[in-house]
Amino acid sequence: MILAAVDAGGTRTRASIVQDSLECRGTGLAGRGNPVSGGPEAAFGEIALAIGRAAAAAAVPLTEIDAVTLASAGGNVFDGGFLDDAMTAIGIRAPLTRKGDLVALFCSGTHETAGYGLVAGTGATAVRIVDSTEEQTIDGLGWLLGDHGSGFWIGHQVARVVASALDGRISTSMVAPALAVLGIEPDLALKAGRPMANHELVRAVYSRSPLALAALASVAFLDDGDEVSSGIVDEAARGLAQSVIDVHADDVTGPLVVGGGVMTGQPRLRAGVVAALESAGLRLRVIEATDGLVGASVLGLRDAGFTVDAAAFETLRSTIAKQLARTTTL
Amino acid sequence: MILAAVDAGGTRTRASIVQDSLECRGTGLAGRGNPVSGGPEAAFGEIALAIGRAAAAAAVPLTEIDAVTLASAGGNVFDGGFLDDAMTAIGIRAPLTRKGDLVALFCSGTHETAGYGLVAGTGATAVRIVDSTEEQTIDGLGWLLGDHGSGFWIGHQVARVVASALDGRISTSMVAPALAVLGIEPDLALKAGRPMANHELVRAVYSRSPLALAALASVAFLDDGDEVSSGIVDEAARGLAQSVIDVHADDVTGPLVVGGGVMTGQPRLRAGVVAALESAGLRLRVIEATDGLVGASVLGLRDAGFTVDAAAFETLRSTIAKQLARTTTL
Repeated sequence: MILAAVDAGGTRTRASIVQDSLECRGTGLAGRGNPVSGGPEAAFGEIALAIGRAAAAAAVPLTEIDAVTLASAGGNVFDGGFLDDAMTAIGIRAPLTRKGDLVALFCSGTHETAGYGLVAGTGATAVRIVDSTEEQTIDGLGWLLGDHGSGFWIGHQVARVVASALDGRISTSMVAPALAVLGIEPDLALKAGRPMANHELVRAVYSRSPLALAALASVAFLDDGDEVSSGIVDEAARGLAQSVIDVHADDVTGPLVVGGGVMTGQPRLRAGVVAALESAGLRLRVIEATDGLVGASVLGLRDAGFTVDAAAFETLRSTIAKQLARTTTL
Repeated sequence: MILAAVDAGGTRTRASIVQDSLECRGTGLAGRGNPVSGGPEAAFGEIALAIGRAAAAAAVPLTEIDAVTLASAGGNVFDGGFLDDAMTAIGIRAPLTRKGDLVALFCSGTHETAGYGLVAGTGATAVRIVDSTEEQTIDGLGWLLGDHGSGFWIGHQVARVVASALDGRISTSMVAPALAVLGIEPDLALKAGRPMANHELVRAVYSRSPLALAALASVAFLDDGDEVSSGIVDEAARGLAQSVIDVHADDVTGPLVVGGGVMTGQPRLRAGVVAALESAGLRLRVIEATDGLVGASVLGLRDAGFTVDAAAFETLRSTIAKQLARTTTL
């Protein structure tokens, strides 16, 4: 039995070829495999590239793949028929199973089949997992309606606070680094009662996609002695913890798997979430996962009838890590 | 001496023809005269239409206009040369003077030449006025960077809270009216662990311009017994009051002129702002103004060397109101 597992993300797509020994035989990388922004054809092109590279690394012809498991955000974006036809067109005749990105992340962190997932990247979502399936989702509502504590949310707060600070309303050490990230000269000469740098900030922010504000998130973590930025980080951690609290059920005792760029990149945010959970009386085992490739492979193996226990999980995890370390093609 | 004064707004443009008696002889209305979204040509078309209608009502040929005063938001959007050429093209050879929308609003509420202006429409801005000129501007930074307490800000909070409520995280009476405003069926059947109505809310919000969220602002004022919506209104009032506090100077003792759709349409918001100012020790005379046409006329007369005292202001205000009541053309 040969499984192709894919973690199709908004920046990168990862694929693995796993055999019934539960060992990974090859991995492949490609670009954005999420169809939300670029459309299904472009996304499928990256998915096909990642699978093709993994199959080449494993020396497995595409026609010998027995099953495909595809983990991605936004369950309904790919039309089911489109994916089946596209797979057939590249020579894969195996059945395709779709999984959510959150359950794949969870299963990348643990062999257990129940617990919690929390992602804080550009967006933020919490899930409760039971029987390797999402039982409840909290937040993940996007930048306008939710994503409390996400990279966008933090970067947006940074931008608002820096605009206020340039107008002299508050004081924060974030002004200079935020302007540097945006490539704006720190020119404080007044024009129409407002510093030039603030006019430039307005121009820069409104000429880009709002989501570009996520690039300012890192500025909030530069100076933990700055009250304003620490307040933003604390509020982000509280918001993320609240999503976990709201998705928690007393009879689900598994671990909390955390992932996403700002969560894995900023230890202060993770520590703040843990502290906020503990002060709400919630002590969870916290595990970090960097992506959903191990989880997509675990889910595909379970769907094929294999038992993935702690030992099998560790074999899979370590062989995928070893193959990824060899995979230099992007 | 014949003055044409124009208040060019984002929804409507108003013009007046004022004679050296300081009486208004005619007014005219037209559509959006703000060039930010539709470009300068379309905006000037509406401005020309409003002036033409006012001149016709006053039985004054365009060639006999001695001065034009144009009040609008975003001082630098019209290129100066463009406006002069466009005025010449419609037969107006008089010099043109530009004014900001905030100082025009202030001068629509009082004959005094110093004090404060606060607008809360889709956006929110506070100004300090000295010598009939903006001395300092606070906020007015747009929906991503500021506009704390504005119609957008309130509507955005309503949308976020309603999304949370649909996921069962909080309870508020705003859910049904907010869904009604957006034309969404209150379908609570679950799909992927989330009510259909929340999926529809996500779809509706992200398929429109973010600024369309301002349409939800009125929902926050429907039920003052609802803690969640009252919290949003209170926080909006505090944000607006803070902008006034930050622009206040002890030696400027004039009144606070308030305007904008959500401010003039929702008495609870105005009362909240006054209460928040008073608890910060700031007692200001508060005057409401619905638009900037009286102010544009006052500013044009002052620039032409006329004194506009309390009596002259009252003549101008009442004759403009009388002419506007006769002006049915939109």
